[in-house]
Amino acid sequence: MPQSLTDVYAIILAGGSGTRFWPLSRETCPKQMLQIVGEDTLLRQTIKRINGFVPPENIWIVTTEDKAQDIKFHLEPLGPMAKEIQFIREPIGRNTAPAIGLAALHIMHVSPESIMVVMPSDHVIPDTEKFLSDLRLAIQGAEEDYLVTFGIKPSQPETGYGYVKVDNSSRMELNGFLKVDCFFEKPDLQTAISYLSDGSYFWNSGIFVWKTSQILSEIRNHLPALYQTLKKIESLLFTTEKPSIPQSLPVREAGAIPNPQWSMLYTNLESISIDYGVMERSQNVLMVPATFQWSDLGSWAALDEIVKKDDAGNILRGNTIDIGSQNSIVFSGERLVATIGLKDMVVVDTPDATLVTPKNQVQEVRRIVEVLRQSGREEHLIHKTVERPWGSYTVLEKGQGYKIKRVVLKPKARLSLQLHKRRSEHWVVVAGTAKVTKENETYLVHTNESTYIPINTKHRLENPGEIPLQIIEVQNGDYVEEDDIVRFSDDYGR
Amino acid sequence: MPQSLTDVYAIILAGGSGTRFWPLSRETCPKQMLQIVGEDTLLRQTIKRINGFVPPENIWIVTTEDKAQDIKFHLEPLGPMAKEIQFIREPIGRNTAPAIGLAALHIMHVSPESIMVVMPSDHVIPDTEKFLSDLRLAIQGAEEDYLVTFGIKPSQPETGYGYVKVDNSSRMELNGFLKVDCFFEKPDLQTAISYLSDGSYFWNSGIFVWKTSQILSEIRNHLPALYQTLKKIESLLFTTEKPSIPQSLPVREAGAIPNPQWSMLYTNLESISIDYGVMERSQNVLMVPATFQWSDLGSWAALDEIVKKDDAGNILRGNTIDIGSQNSIVFSGERLVATIGLKDMVVVDTPDATLVTPKNQVQEVRRIVEVLRQSGREEHLIHKTVERPWGSYTVLEKGQGYKIKRVVLKPKARLSLQLHKRRSEHWVVVAGTAKVTKENETYLVHTNESTYIPINTKHRLENPGEIPLQIIEVQNGDYVEEDDIVRFSDDYGR
Repeated sequence: MPQSLTDVYAIILAGGSGTRFWPLSRETCPKQMLQIVGEDTLLRQTIKRINGFVPPENIWIVTTEDKAQDIKFHLEPLGPMAKEIQFIREPIGRNTAPAIGLAALHIMHVSPESIMVVMPSDHVIPDTEKFLSDLRLAIQGAEEDYLVTFGIKPSQPETGYGYVKVDNSSRMELNGFLKVDCFFEKPDLQTAISYLSDGSYFWNSGIFVWKTSQILSEIRNHLPALYQTLKKIESLLFTTEKPSIPQSLPVREAGAIPNPQWSMLYTNLESISIDYGVMERSQNVLMVPATFQWSDLGSWAALDEIVKKDDAGNILRGNTIDIGSQNSIVFSGERLVATIGLKDMVVVDTPDATLVTPKNQVQEVRRIVEVLRQSGREEHLIHKTVERPWGSYTVLEKGQGYKIKRVVLKPKARLSLQLHKRRSEHWVVVAGTAKVTKENETYLVHTNESTYIPINTKHRLENPGEIPLQIIEVQNGDYVEEDDIVRFSDDYGR
Repeated sequence: MPQSLTDVYAIILAGGSGTRFWPLSRETCPKQMLQIVGEDTLLRQTIKRINGFVPPENIWIVTTEDKAQDIKFHLEPLGPMAKEIQFIREPIGRNTAPAIGLAALHIMHVSPESIMVVMPSDHVIPDTEKFLSDLRLAIQGAEEDYLVTFGIKPSQPETGYGYVKVDNSSRMELNGFLKVDCFFEKPDLQTAISYLSDGSYFWNSGIFVWKTSQILSEIRNHLPALYQTLKKIESLLFTTEKPSIPQSLPVREAGAIPNPQWSMLYTNLESISIDYGVMERSQNVLMVPATFQWSDLGSWAALDEIVKKDDAGNILRGNTIDIGSQNSIVFSGERLVATIGLKDMVVVDTPDATLVTPKNQVQEVRRIVEVLRQSGREEHLIHKTVERPWGSYTVLEKGQGYKIKRVVLKPKARLSLQLHKRRSEHWVVVAGTAKVTKENETYLVHTNESTYIPINTKHRLENPGEIPLQIIEVQNGDYVEEDDIVRFSDDYGR
């Protein structure tokens, strides 16, 4: 074991875009930010799972620059500990090997003797106790300079996962570890059936434990080009004289401001997974056979493995009425979805888009997202309701020259002091009381009262009360997009 | 032939509620008011089909009191002729025999020698010329005191229609008519297959032609209880001394004001169809084998018979993206519906409800509507967008103590002078210019301006301009339902 758990760092990979859960997932709301299974979102569950095992300041999230702000906002419900969580911002996603390398680079500078626990942000692991128990074992292996992975005993011939083959002959010698023989990509069904009957194949969970120094050494051996670039990035980010103190920033904020110089270097890296780039090539890999239940939730159909079904095998959520369906998944929100006699179908409804597909074709949802992207539409980008640390807003309607929003402000929250160059805004208060700043004037607007913010006028909306403030905002102008905003002061560092 | 076509009356039965096309149909927007097939709604197509063949004042619509106003509004797009169309208002729906009897009663008083053409309001007949040609033949039969029906040559063993069996031996004697042997209710599949191979069975179209006096005579013979009640209603509605002039109202408006006395009599009538009550029992029935294509559009699946499909057998309408579906029907509006690999499915999306079902179970949609009715919900009652003669309104959102609507007024249209006792209204003009009356004050509100109508304040909204006026209305109050309205003056007779 490391001297203390303050030497263990949890690296949560949260750069995924999660098109496979469209229309519930969007570019600005990827799978890890969805509450699909369990009491919280997958990312917040991942953090809760490890929080306490390591101190919150040892939890580092690696994500892309464009997602970082949304993810920071997304962590607010975790309370004060959320502010301790560190962010490493990639200029752009380059798969897991560069992301892990970049994280290792940063951690080496704060704790050269550290152990890294690398976890995806969007997997389901219902039993935290078993997970932590297995993790303790894995850390022992990492202490011995092994790269340790977790393998899941297959329950069916799954074609959606990669596999790890172990060398069964060595089982006894290794104190609960299995020596890894080989990694395999997602197999076809025939191969998956043979893996299942063989008994020495495990699902590759994508959760890894190793010494920070060891993974950098393995990257140097197996991915020398990546290693060279990482060294260049390191020289741009940190002084070599004082390895544990960054040049100009607190080290933990070093990744917060992508620098044009290292951005370019990182962007030019080859996209490659750590499995393919390092794990498959290293002779130094052990596997812990997981005692915990696990799913990577690779698609809507994967809910079947992990969510309790009704007597007819259905998973029905939200505003649904069903007559006689079987083995189907129906996800609705506030709108009504009525289903009759479905068999092995998936129906997912959101305020602006609905998906209907047989379970065995859910992987094709990627193609729908591709069509949306190519045709310049918005249903893959953003939800109608956007959560913010101060509350939320919902686009009720957008028309020629106008947009209507419902804006909800939490008690005591306020928006930034801002102005819009191309639109005016009418605000009608429908619940609570608003404190409005308009240029040099400040006044209250009560329920059933309204106010008007002309174009090019500095303004701020604030909820001084104890109940949520709800306003209906009617925007008028020749351009009514979110990016027409000049912020003068913001409580959320924007 | 009757002396002139001014003696032919078209009776359009428009009392149906059309739950089978939910969620596109609602109680306030039944199937006949939907544009499912063709260039206009089924009811307006039915009127256009017969208009010109008979003068517009000879077109009489029989519907229930609660639907009459909506249907009147619905006819506005037909232009000035719509005002000539007469309405007979049933206090409540009692199936076709009472409805036809009530219509005959009225028509007898304006034209005792008349011919009635009885037509459902929600059938599809693409070829008007062929229909009118067959109709001319049917009128000849009616002139000879026959009850004439139209039979459709079956193209498949349909279990959703009733059947008419003809006496083939008499075919030659009757100038294109066939003598009817018997009527049959909807058969099971085995029976339908035997009907199809037999050759003497036709689909019962529910379109009838007869003398007004003759159908009353047949009702007297076969439905004496109905006849007695009709005579009592007649004595309440018309003086017996002057049979063609009503007691106090122009005869054509006689049905417009349901009178408590005859309402009770009508409501107590047995619900019975004209097919079962008269046609099956009469010895006096001829059939015209229709030369026109026909469908009663009994369910979503019936679209297959009448709508052109794409190469994969799909009917896709509205905002849809499909990958690889076959023989499926997808109806969407503005929201996106994405479908993958469907086979023989029906997906119907509306702003507040979506239906997903295999084609062979579409009839179960009635049970969904029943569930909605029993649980006191609204998705079977009304659409989010309601068409009105002055324009339309759309409920964008309803919350605790408030409701938000987009209201669109046609050029030169105005709402009634009205007040609300329990809500105030904020209006923001997003397109066009509004003329607003507020108590004794009248003023203009331009695009991007707003105004406020306090509770208990007489007001009127008007579009004085040449382009549609669009306003966003935010209602505030402890009660924000449509029935909180006091009208002082209304252009639409409400």
